[in-house]
Amino acid sequence: MKLSLAFSMIAVAGAFAPAQNGRSSTELHSGVTRNPNFAKLAGGYLFPEIGRRRTAYLAENPDMADRIISLGIGDTTQPIPEHILSGLVGSASKLGTKEGYSGYGAEQGMGDLRAKIAEKLYDGNIKADEVFVSDGAKCDIMRVQQVFGPGVTTAVQDPSYPVYVDTSVMMGQTGDINSETSQYDNIVYMPCTAENNFFPDIENLPRADIVYFCSPNNPTGAAATREQLEMLVKVCKERGSILVFDAAYAPFIRSEGVPKSIFEIDGAREVAIECNSFSKYAGFTGVRLGWTVVPDELTFSDGTKVRDDFNRVMTTAFNGASNIVQGGGLACLDDEGLTEINTLIDYYLENAKLLKEAMESIGYDVFGGADAPYVFVKLPDGKKSWDTFSEILEKTQVVTIPGAGFGPGGEGYLRLSAFAPRDTVIEACERLKKAMA
Amino acid sequence: MKLSLAFSMIAVAGAFAPAQNGRSSTELHSGVTRNPNFAKLAGGYLFPEIGRRRTAYLAENPDMADRIISLGIGDTTQPIPEHILSGLVGSASKLGTKEGYSGYGAEQGMGDLRAKIAEKLYDGNIKADEVFVSDGAKCDIMRVQQVFGPGVTTAVQDPSYPVYVDTSVMMGQTGDINSETSQYDNIVYMPCTAENNFFPDIENLPRADIVYFCSPNNPTGAAATREQLEMLVKVCKERGSILVFDAAYAPFIRSEGVPKSIFEIDGAREVAIECNSFSKYAGFTGVRLGWTVVPDELTFSDGTKVRDDFNRVMTTAFNGASNIVQGGGLACLDDEGLTEINTLIDYYLENAKLLKEAMESIGYDVFGGADAPYVFVKLPDGKKSWDTFSEILEKTQVVTIPGAGFGPGGEGYLRLSAFAPRDTVIEACERLKKAMA
Repeated sequence: MKLSLAFSMIAVAGAFAPAQNGRSSTELHSGVTRNPNFAKLAGGYLFPEIGRRRTAYLAENPDMADRIISLGIGDTTQPIPEHILSGLVGSASKLGTKEGYSGYGAEQGMGDLRAKIAEKLYDGNIKADEVFVSDGAKCDIMRVQQVFGPGVTTAVQDPSYPVYVDTSVMMGQTGDINSETSQYDNIVYMPCTAENNFFPDIENLPRADIVYFCSPNNPTGAAATREQLEMLVKVCKERGSILVFDAAYAPFIRSEGVPKSIFEIDGAREVAIECNSFSKYAGFTGVRLGWTVVPDELTFSDGTKVRDDFNRVMTTAFNGASNIVQGGGLACLDDEGLTEINTLIDYYLENAKLLKEAMESIGYDVFGGADAPYVFVKLPDGKKSWDTFSEILEKTQVVTIPGAGFGPGGEGYLRLSAFAPRDTVIEACERLKKAMA
Repeated sequence: MKLSLAFSMIAVAGAFAPAQNGRSSTELHSGVTRNPNFAKLAGGYLFPEIGRRRTAYLAENPDMADRIISLGIGDTTQPIPEHILSGLVGSASKLGTKEGYSGYGAEQGMGDLRAKIAEKLYDGNIKADEVFVSDGAKCDIMRVQQVFGPGVTTAVQDPSYPVYVDTSVMMGQTGDINSETSQYDNIVYMPCTAENNFFPDIENLPRADIVYFCSPNNPTGAAATREQLEMLVKVCKERGSILVFDAAYAPFIRSEGVPKSIFEIDGAREVAIECNSFSKYAGFTGVRLGWTVVPDELTFSDGTKVRDDFNRVMTTAFNGASNIVQGGGLACLDDEGLTEINTLIDYYLENAKLLKEAMESIGYDVFGGADAPYVFVKLPDGKKSWDTFSEILEKTQVVTIPGAGFGPGGEGYLRLSAFAPRDTVIEACERLKKAMA
């Protein structure tokens, strides 16, 4: 014991100076310094902020509560179809039996689910042990960031899903935010607007270590073509960048020839990670199931496989997706499940079409909404996103999302989500046409 | 577009030097430098390593497959009891109905579950909005680390659950491992062995910013007394440290007067975070449900509430525990659920008693196993943990865990887990008594 204690003292000598530490003078606060990366974060996370503004509006206008229609956060609304539901209920029920009970599973997911994802969704381009099953794409993006650490530089589409930038800031990869541009130092913002058909001029932008790319895109609804993705993979490969491809909206792609996975592109196995999710496939936003593909060929500059470090995060800092939920995932990938998913997606795509038509009839330029559940509306020159969000909320009680919430490049745009019951979408279209025309 | 692009270029000027970057010379690897913190990690995560050795043994001894008994990883084995199961099945089923369907919930958990945890498990010491519901304590420890960032110093019990040290290394809080002591620089190892009754001489150890403390302890099975916890809170307060208290085994405490939560100790609200889990309460190891309590009073040195930064991680890098699983959590906290939990815990505690008696009858000094599901066996002088692990596996086909897997302080000990069906525990006891006496 004495010896062991002595070792501890030696091991930390120099690293600690107990006399200088201790409770701060006021005795009100701990002596632990706040992580400076958190101080850099501008405002709260976008979606809770939308909720806050909606709540504030209702506090002032309580009689409007019944009239609120949310086309804001991309949250599924349709019940889970029968076959998929039977997968969830069945795997819950069997936990009550001696034979069916299971405890900890592999942190990377059940073997049969990993194999089924590889087989049914990747057409043989991916092996089962390259698939890591998780509780969702958002959570996986943080785990991917954990692998990369604070030393990398990052590029994002602008506008984009806020999680890429926010987690980069949290990890310490960025500098401070520039109050004029609303951009963080050390992040390459890749403008994606109507002017460039929502695909960045990547060759003429600075290199970054990690390139986040979401297609079909949230919020713009743009689905990159095969030629565009080939260019993306080529540039990443030439520059030695790692591409983190977010394919969470892939099942909405109906246009012929548009790739649903980055691994349909030659050479992607050497440059890309793909994050994906059952959230939008099967209405699993609250159920929580996703996956990330890390191909065997993807390496860091020293030759270490990215997959090995990702596996270390999955096993050390995660404990597997719920066994009940993974049973639902298996059902999703049965033929009956895949048919049910298609029916669900058809429903939301029809909503998107209605929203697109309504906004066009008002006279706006409208993008997305064809291979994606998001309709991206260009506001008339000079109109600000947050102002229009407020104006629409006040005039029509429809909750939208300001494009500026997805990055400075989204200023002057508004995102409408097709995730809503049909009758409310029709009602929202009527109100918008009446109030905004 | 031109303007926007120009801004991007300016914003990153100086931070990037594209000409110097690019594909490494061999063109085999990406140009992204591996996170150096991952290179520091010694070996794989403990439990997969145990699985690997078990698999290797079976590869050489395939006829022994049916004889394997696992007293290794602390994984529950008993089916989920009726009332709790009905909570899980019911919340799965209702997702198939229009009225019962739910998508994204609050990232911090359902309001009624947060309130019920505060009420039923904290006896009014904690408010609902201080409870963050999650997919498990292991995952929450990583999120807590995310909040603290790379700049803090850490103290751990030695031996302890490997996740505290491994996530500290991943976050960049440590130096390299010392090959002689098997200790990482910049971590304060607090020896907890038979010699100090498994409670560290904390006053005479160096200060750290963050003190991880698990009670009842994994792997030693020691449950800290009220006086010990008062000392722990007092020292953390005096030194301005933040205490991360892991209470995942709290329901195993049956001794009168032993606290089940750090928040039973006066002053803990100003120094402590508590991580907890339904895994061992209700056999939810595969179901995935946990929670973390961050009191309002806990602040960093600049006065920022720790809860606010933890909330930012929960909303930005996590998306809530599964709605199905949270329904199970609600059922756990009904009176019927709490009774079922007690019956489950009784079962495992009886297993622990049998294991303890068997090892004592062989002549070992045995610790734990009373207020904890782990029995911690002191090996005769000079016997090594990993050697004994192998010897027992070969002689008896019983899988244990070497104490050294939990840190250098665990060398010379072996952990036996009471999480196993009764008949296999009895069989394991017989074999151990026969082979090891």
